[in-house]
Amino acid sequence: MINIDYLVRDLSLVRERSPLVHNITNYVAMNNSANALLAVGASPVMAHSLDEVAEMAGIASSLVINIGTLEAEWVKAMLIAGKTALDKHIPVVFDPVGAGATSYRSEVCTQIIEECKPSVIRGNASEIIALFNAGAKTKGVDSTNTSEAALHPAKALAGESGSIVVISGETDYITDGSTVEIVRNGNPMMAKVTGMGCTASAIVGAFIAVNPNFLEAATHAMFIMGIAGEIAARSSKGNGSLQINFLDTLFNIDEESIRKNIRL
Amino acid sequence: MINIDYLVRDLSLVRERSPLVHNITNYVAMNNSANALLAVGASPVMAHSLDEVAEMAGIASSLVINIGTLEAEWVKAMLIAGKTALDKHIPVVFDPVGAGATSYRSEVCTQIIEECKPSVIRGNASEIIALFNAGAKTKGVDSTNTSEAALHPAKALAGESGSIVVISGETDYITDGSTVEIVRNGNPMMAKVTGMGCTASAIVGAFIAVNPNFLEAATHAMFIMGIAGEIAARSSKGNGSLQINFLDTLFNIDEESIRKNIRL
Amino acid sequence: MINIDYLVRDLSLVRERSPLVHNITNYVAMNNSANALLAVGASPVMAHSLDEVAEMAGIASSLVINIGTLEAEWVKAMLIAGKTALDKHIPVVFDPVGAGATSYRSEVCTQIIEECKPSVIRGNASEIIALFNAGAKTKGVDSTNTSEAALHPAKALAGESGSIVVISGETDYITDGSTVEIVRNGNPMMAKVTGMGCTASAIVGAFIAVNPNFLEAATHAMFIMGIAGEIAARSSKGNGSLQINFLDTLFNIDEESIRKNIRL
Repeated sequence: MINIDYLVRDLSLVRERSPLVHNITNYVAMNNSANALLAVGASPVMAHSLDEVAEMAGIASSLVINIGTLEAEWVKAMLIAGKTALDKHIPVVFDPVGAGATSYRSEVCTQIIEECKPSVIRGNASEIIALFNAGAKTKGVDSTNTSEAALHPAKALAGESGSIVVISGETDYITDGSTVEIVRNGNPMMAKVTGMGCTASAIVGAFIAVNPNFLEAATHAMFIMGIAGEIAARSSKGNGSLQINFLDTLFNIDEESIRKNIRL
Repeated sequence: MINIDYLVRDLSLVRERSPLVHNITNYVAMNNSANALLAVGASPVMAHSLDEVAEMAGIASSLVINIGTLEAEWVKAMLIAGKTALDKHIPVVFDPVGAGATSYRSEVCTQIIEECKPSVIRGNASEIIALFNAGAKTKGVDSTNTSEAALHPAKALAGESGSIVVISGETDYITDGSTVEIVRNGNPMMAKVTGMGCTASAIVGAFIAVNPNFLEAATHAMFIMGIAGEIAARSSKGNGSLQINFLDTLFNIDEESIRKNIRL
Repeated sequence: MINIDYLVRDLSLVRERSPLVHNITNYVAMNNSANALLAVGASPVMAHSLDEVAEMAGIASSLVINIGTLEAEWVKAMLIAGKTALDKHIPVVFDPVGAGATSYRSEVCTQIIEECKPSVIRGNASEIIALFNAGAKTKGVDSTNTSEAALHPAKALAGESGSIVVISGETDYITDGSTVEIVRNGNPMMAKVTGMGCTASAIVGAFIAVNPNFLEAATHAMFIMGIAGEIAARSSKGNGSLQINFLDTLFNIDEESIRKNIRL
């Protein structure tokens, strides 16, 4: 069960410590992810060169690996950074964008999960189902399944991999394989803003940098995402303004707005 | 001549079917293109790796190739994806960003048009003139010609290539080499939003995915772009807010706003 | 000392001539940089392929090199473009993003400065200190030093390299090694918008394209940045709206708003 005091504490810790969150992410979501990390109080860095990726991962407080626009050289960099982080006990979030859409994506996902042992895996329902069941096909990068449908696969995946698994959707589920936390905050229009899932992974990266209880940290991050998205959607006419209002809301979110808007 | 009923029908089809539009596009416009496709109701995916590009193109409803920030490996991916699409009768839009600015761009354009036989080629006037006349030079990626000046080259290019050719500018012309459709909607401030032309190509990609009459589909897409841009510009103070208002308008555009704003 | 008449003249020249500014920059800031250049009246182009980078640099009015998301092939392109520009007397701005964060970044910075002899180097305080003192370490890409602390290093770096050095921060300093210009306009929230520093480098690129007195041109550009950011921040609730309002303000900035808001 979520404790709002701890959620507020984690948010404060992100703002006080401004953890360096190293992102190896996709071209579409880089700008959004960086701005969301700045809005929440973290310090983002994007770096993927084989000539520096281990060094950068080694000085970071957490690492976010996202395969949205993957290619061979980037995957090499992801594996080097991920293994460096693993060696140095730096927590890693893995975002398996489009898992199941092509066999290459599915193979890379398996390799990253096995070799980097991410602390948290965050995906939409279709991606989590595809990770669990290598035969499942997904359509591009948008989910065609409900979060509920992915709950069993998520628990099994968490059990097998040792990672916390986050399914994001209208309802978010966060599980370590046995306990399941539920986040009902959010707004359906968020799915119409590109990179919103990637942004969620980045925010999880900020929270696991300050709270070593990754189930709790990931749940807190998803509440912050959901609450900020829900508040922002109220004054948004479409996915353009939602993208902007979301950042503004994240920038200003505080204990009062959390307590007022959280759905428990 | 445009039939508004058919335009409204195509928009409805995009929203109902949510076609998967595979984009191999430039770094600058990826986020805009993805958000515009989501706003109009399509499902965007960005993928360029040689390890998956044929598979992704093969499951897509249409393919958008845009050379804005081209490089050798990406061009290989464009050609593989484009030829896969051609084999599978998946329609392709080609956006020859900066054609004529460097000889490399001009060569790549020729190769893509010859090998992928795009259903639609969409560019600004300078780019279309450069495609037609290999000797013409352009300044960077912004047009220095009027759309009218490109009309003859567009018709000749359409005749030679078998592609529908779209010249976008203050007035847009869409031609199959003989028929010419004209779109007068739009606003000059749109040229001050980076990637607006790339976004137009992406929206054409959504419409040719639901309407096999590509002249009609491309014309409908350009009307949607022009009408949304024109409405959005009314409440925009500069290119920042126009980028956002454009997405919001696209998100909400409907038969009523189309009928009220279309210039025939 | 700044002369407002000259500042206004340079802004008018950018708008009249619309100089082609060639950017080899990072994935995070490409969209922002392009939109900011369009807002101020310049014509941006992004190109990095080894197959065209020399040709593109050769037709540009200025070149902006930014290593935010550097990798080996891009660094090759930066060096080719930078040396082409040097040969053809085309001014170059260099943005040493994250200098000092990894040894690779520091080495690349040294190489670019030595081989391309940039007209202007623009960085935050930590980056400028790292360039001057190869042993200094920085945390990611955000500055942990005040601009004042970087003033001596900036002057020394300017003296050694022959470049104008710009330190941006709450107060900006612009120096040729002896003269120091000071820009006090701006707002702290600007540091929370990703790519704002990169945008400043791009705007410097637009101004050095029209004014060969690079100390003056860079100072003018930093005033435009600071004034636009300060005006925009007044109506911004967070880093989301600031990013958009900044572009709108830049789009509309004129002699009156400059005279009213400049801090001398």
